[in-house]
Formats: sequence, structure tokens, C-alpha cells
Amino acid sequence: MSKRLALVAGFALPMLVQPVSAQTAPAPMVAKMKALMASPAFAKAKTSLDSDWDRIVKDLVTLTEIPAPPFKEATRAKAYAAMLTEAGLTDVEIDAEGNASGIRKGTGGGAPLLLVQAHLDTVFPEGTDTHVKHEGDKLRAPGIGDDTTGLAVLLALVRALDRAGFKTKQDIVFAGNVGEEGPGDLRGTRYFFQKSKYKDRIKQFISIEPSRESVTTGGVGSKRYKVIFHGPGGHSYGNFGIVNPAYAMANAITAFSKMQVPATPKTTFNVGIVEGGTSVNSVPHDVAMTIDMRSESKAELDKEDAYLKSILQPAVDMENKARSTSRGSITYTLQQIGERPVGQTPEDSNIVRVATAAQNVVGVTPRYGAGSSDSNIPMSLGIPAVTLGSGFPTGGNHALDEWVQVEKAGTLRELQVDLATIITLANGQ
Amino acid sequence: MSKRLALVAGFALPMLVQPVSAQTAPAPMVAKMKALMASPAFAKAKTSLDSDWDRIVKDLVTLTEIPAPPFKEATRAKAYAAMLTEAGLTDVEIDAEGNASGIRKGTGGGAPLLLVQAHLDTVFPEGTDTHVKHEGDKLRAPGIGDDTTGLAVLLALVRALDRAGFKTKQDIVFAGNVGEEGPGDLRGTRYFFQKSKYKDRIKQFISIEPSRESVTTGGVGSKRYKVIFHGPGGHSYGNFGIVNPAYAMANAITAFSKMQVPATPKTTFNVGIVEGGTSVNSVPHDVAMTIDMRSESKAELDKEDAYLKSILQPAVDMENKARSTSRGSITYTLQQIGERPVGQTPEDSNIVRVATAAQNVVGVTPRYGAGSSDSNIPMSLGIPAVTLGSGFPTGGNHALDEWVQVEKAGTLRELQVDLATIITLANGQ
Repeated sequence: MSKRLALVAGFALPMLVQPVSAQTAPAPMVAKMKALMASPAFAKAKTSLDSDWDRIVKDLVTLTEIPAPPFKEATRAKAYAAMLTEAGLTDVEIDAEGNASGIRKGTGGGAPLLLVQAHLDTVFPEGTDTHVKHEGDKLRAPGIGDDTTGLAVLLALVRALDRAGFKTKQDIVFAGNVGEEGPGDLRGTRYFFQKSKYKDRIKQFISIEPSRESVTTGGVGSKRYKVIFHGPGGHSYGNFGIVNPAYAMANAITAFSKMQVPATPKTTFNVGIVEGGTSVNSVPHDVAMTIDMRSESKAELDKEDAYLKSILQPAVDMENKARSTSRGSITYTLQQIGERPVGQTPEDSNIVRVATAAQNVVGVTPRYGAGSSDSNIPMSLGIPAVTLGSGFPTGGNHALDEWVQVEKAGTLRELQVDLATIITLANGQ
Repeated sequence: MSKRLALVAGFALPMLVQPVSAQTAPAPMVAKMKALMASPAFAKAKTSLDSDWDRIVKDLVTLTEIPAPPFKEATRAKAYAAMLTEAGLTDVEIDAEGNASGIRKGTGGGAPLLLVQAHLDTVFPEGTDTHVKHEGDKLRAPGIGDDTTGLAVLLALVRALDRAGFKTKQDIVFAGNVGEEGPGDLRGTRYFFQKSKYKDRIKQFISIEPSRESVTTGGVGSKRYKVIFHGPGGHSYGNFGIVNPAYAMANAITAFSKMQVPATPKTTFNVGIVEGGTSVNSVPHDVAMTIDMRSESKAELDKEDAYLKSILQPAVDMENKARSTSRGSITYTLQQIGERPVGQTPEDSNIVRVATAAQNVVGVTPRYGAGSSDSNIPMSLGIPAVTLGSGFPTGGNHALDEWVQVEKAGTLRELQVDLATIITLANGQ
């Protein structure tokens, strides 16, 4: 079961960040950010984060131990909605897609709003033990880093805003969203932009994922397929000589593996899973492979897609010519199982510059890069979006031995950056 | 689960019988057989079979409803041992391998004996519903034909021998054996010839499998492998460019599919199952395929084996040259998962002629052929062996909709043939 479910996992941000450049914001912007982060109000926010440290860790453990497999985030969503209420948000709800969200009203009377998200779902299937193990300064459990750190941190940011008395012009919606990981195919974020009651008002977007000192400005696009090769099937001995779909698939894989792609913009392809057949002594009825193709460029991704589609029929034809089709011929079915749009938030956009300025103020020159996460959706729609870090050092994301290091100073510094970015973007003062 | 278990299923006799020739026995032998089958004692045996008909069907249903998955035949073996005792055999036991057997002592004081078997195991995994459905003159349930008909029939043969008062010179051991189907790899019969207390005394062998009007004289040999291709694995995007074991396996399958084999002696090959990989966006660590190769000729089977072994390293090398081995290279492991020896009982041997003569007496010119079943073991050892029919018309062997037709006349005719063959071989009078 875990293997089947794992098929659809993946797409964690941390594994995907590709450093593109290291940047500093324009001096006036940094000066303005410095003023904010040196203000008495921001000092209160820092105090709030500092005094909240044990609570952040406690929330992290609590949430990690509520399993949230793909499409089964409901229990964690309910718990998270209660936490959003407790943190002081209003209009807390679980929407039709399953996202838990609440609003922090601004002074501007509505209209444009900033959506800040962390995702509820993990890659791990039902039945995975998510009990947190304490090992020195490490906490170990599946899903604890990606993205449960984001969920815990987001609550601390809300509390810090309130305790410091920050007022922002724009409304800010904070959400724990569903469906970020592979099989979810970004369904939670798609819902926010396509169907939610906020859909036309979201003008800026931040997602918080496990990393630090980075600003993700690009969304790597991807197309995923399952290709199934069908044949008549039969007995390996009694029906020897008939076409075998495994041979047709081998022809296709061999051709696929010869695809030419550019190094820049980065473009990749993969056969991730092969499966099929019922017994060693049966000619299979069906065999299948799953394919992942990605690119930073829509044009290159489209070229990959065209190449894949061009090789399948010849691979099938080759097998139909090599053996007998007396019981039937090989055919194939191409099933799209995922698509993430290519997107980019320009490096000179306000949202990137603000996040960069905040990093610069704390002495960091952030890495820019491209990822594949919830930000792909707004990026592909031309809505300014970045992915920022939850601050915690993490490792083993998507693996059963996933861990988080409870490292206070660096994590709190990242949270100050996140907070200053949010306040500035929401036109706070 | 069913797929994994099904991997090792297969090798049912009925699917494999390859008609080679249709034969009649020498006239004097037919005359002698005719005298036996016209004798008053044999008339009593026929009456016994006729009056036992309902009981045969009842035993068939009872035994079918005791599941006997590969390596899990114990419950059925225990029930069958009790039935062997009830049928009148002595020294009934379940041996160390799990075979249930009993002996019908001859008048010769021991030494050479005839072993008559039907197999206890079915191909179906634990949890399969084996409840028998009655549909007109058909009984439907997984495993009901192959080889539960053989088990039920064998009991009727024992009773007929006793009721007719037949004495034979040789001892006859009747057994319900384990391990005939794929994963069992003939372990029950291997045990009889290699380790059982009868091992040096078995000079003739009959197995009873679902068919009629056939005498299986050849044992098709087979070799089965699982080939696993190992690689470093990694993220499809982050580690793009590294070697992929699925591509190496595709190279191997393509080369394997080009193997040249003769039509006569019949020689076949197959890729039955392909599997591997953990997620669509991971470069797999391991992928694997299962391979079945068979031949009526040991020399041809050995050639197939050599060919397979010659293509694997080049397939791996090709992939290691095509992509980066910076994280590790592709390697492979070849695991043998099954081997059945090639064997043949000459068509002019006494055992084949006796079985043929019995068929001739009831007006049948039996089909000769080669199969892959328990008889392969004695055949490969040069011990005279044939597979005879349980008589019932059957269909859907190894499928969940397997069925048996309750057709009395033709089935009883086949049982008379079996009985006359057994009596003659055991030097009965």
C-alpha cells in the first residue's frame, strides 16, 4: 500500500529549490524595512515569537501526531481550524475543498487581500506511525518538517501580529491548505483561486515551507502521466508467440530515455514506476509506467510533452510487427495524472523585493530559486507569489526518518523575516 | 496480495498439454487389458464407481471449500489424510513436507511400489472465497478442477479396488501432495523421491490432473528468474541526469525479446511481471522483472539460460554509459525462482502402453503430450511416469471463475481407465 500511495507523493519544496541568484533589495527599501524591524511594535512581535518558542514546538508535535495523508487531511484540518480561532482569527472555516482558514481583518475595508498558507497534507499513507521521537535537539516523525513546521509557525506569526498591535490595511487570510503533495495536485490552492469566497480578492500570496534564507520566485511546471500498454494476454507457454505489452513498454522506455533536453532552462524527465503482469507464466494483459516531466520553461515542457506523445505509437507498432497479433494487438492509453503550471514571480517585483529586504536587514542575502509547490498556482496566474521558509532546519523530507532540529535563534530570525514581509505586503505600519 | 501470489502461480497441466501424437497400444496388450476390464472383479469396481458418484461430487465440494494456498495446504492435508484412512488405506501420515499419504499393501512383500498422486495445493491466495456455487450441471469455485477433482477421484479409486477385492503384487501409495503449483516448485513430489521413506522404492508414478482422454508423457522443463536492477535512486528533478534502472531493464527486455528459439522442440520465453519504483517523481532504486523460459529439450533450455545471462550486463553497461554514475552505477541481481527438469517417458515404455491400452479398450485413442507438473520429477529421474485425467470436464483453471461439469458417463469412463492402468501397473490380477 505504501508503495502505491508513494507513487503520487513528491514535490516537496525543499528538494526542488534551485538556487538561481543571490540578491539584495534596493537601498531605500532596505532602509524602510530596517525602520519597521527596529520599531517598538516589531520589538513586541519579536518578544512574542521568543516567548512563544516552546509553544511553537508543542504545536509542531501536536499537529505532526495527527496524520494527514493525501485526501485525508480532515482530522488535522479540524484541529487546525480550532488553533486558528484560538490564535485570534475570525471567520474561521473549513471550506468545501477542506482548507482551514481564518481572516485577520485590515483597516482598508476589504478588497485586495494577502493569502498566507502552509499545507496540511503530508506524503505519508494512512497507517504511518507519526508519533514524534525526541532525539537530543532533533524531533523525528514522518511529515514533521514538510509542512507541519509551516503550520506551527503560521500560528505564531498571527499571535505576534496581535500582541504587537499591528494594524494592516489589507485583510490577511491565514490558511492550512489541503492537497499540496503529489496526488493532491495543488487542489487546495486551486480552490482558493478558482472557487473560494476570496478568489477575486487575493492579490498577493505567500506559502511557508521548510527552509531558511531562501525566496522561491519560480514555479517549475510539470506534467505527469501513466502510460498503460494493453495486450491480449495469455499463457506464457500455450500462447507463446503473441505480442507482449512489456516488450512494447520497453521499446517506449528506450526511446523516452533518449529525449534531448536543455540544461537551461532546467528541464527533466523520469520513469518513476513500472508495474504490470499477473504471474511469471502469463503474458501480461497490461503493464504501465509513470512519467514525470518538468521544466522551468513552458515551451520546453510542451516540447517534452510532444516528444512523449510521438514515441508511444511507434513503440507499440514495433511490437505488433515483431510477434503475432492473432489474439489481439498491443494498444496504449495515456492518462494524465498531474499537471503543475510553470510560473514566475519577477525578481524585481515588489513581493520579491520586500522579502529580500527583510532578509537583508537580518544580514542574509537570500537564495532565489524555483520550486514546485502551492505558489505555482498564483505564479501561473500572474499573481505575485513567493514561498518563504518556516525557519527550522529539516531533513529526510518525504522519508520515514524525517526530522526537524529545534534550533531557536536561526528559526526565530527567519520568522522575523516572514513577519516583516507580511506586514509590509499588507501595507502595515 | 493476489497479484504477488499470482506471480508464482501457474503450471496447470491442462493448459500445457501439447498434443504430440495419438496412439494405440500393441494388440496383445490391448487384449490383456480387455480381459481385465471385462472380468467380474472389474465389473464390481465399475459398480463401486457408479454407486460412488454422488460421494465423489460431495468429496469434491468438501475439499474445494477447504482453502489450500501454496505453502498453506495443512488444513486440507489433515482432512485428506482422514479421508485416505476412511477409504481403507493403512500407514496414513502427513510427512515432513506436508504430503498426506497412505498405502494399499500388495502381496509382493514390499520393494517396488507405484505412487499415485493428486495435488492438494491450488494457485489461490489466502482469503480467496472457495465456496462452491451450483449452476445447473456446473460447480464453480476457485481450485475445484485443478486439482481437487484429482483428490476426490483418487479416493473413489481406492474404494473401488477394495470393494472389487483386487489384490496387487506391488504396494500402491496414494497421496495428496503439496507444492505442485508455481511457487511450490514441485516440493511435495521432490520430497517423495528425495527424502520420504518410500524414496528408493517408487518405480512407477501416476499423477491425476483435470483432463480426459490424454496421457502426458513429457515434462516440459522450465527456468524462472527474477532479475532486479539496482541504482542509486534520487529525486527526478533534483538528481536529474543520473542512471535509471528502469532504462537498464528496458534495454534488457528489448534484447530478451529478440531471443531466437526453435518451434520444435517447443521452446518459449516470457517477461511476466515488471515492477519497481516508489514514486512518480523519484528515480527508482530498484526495478525488477520475472522471466519464464521453457523447453521440451534440455539443450534448448540451457541455450535460453545462456542467452539471458549474456544480455544482462550489456544492458546495464549501456545505461551506465548513457547517464551519470556520480551517485552510483546500475547493477543487477539474478535470482532463480523456479526450475522444473525436462523429462520424458518413452512412448514405447510399459507405463505409457498400459495407459494407452486402457483407453483403447473404452474406445479412445488418447492424446499424448508434454506438460509441466509433478510428473516432471520422476520423468527427469528416468522413472516411468504419466499424468492421467481425473475425467471431469473443467474450465477456467487458475481463474476465479474456475468450474467443473458434473458429467457422469464420460468421467466414470476415465476413472475405469485410471483404475485398469493402476491395477495392471501394480501387477494386479
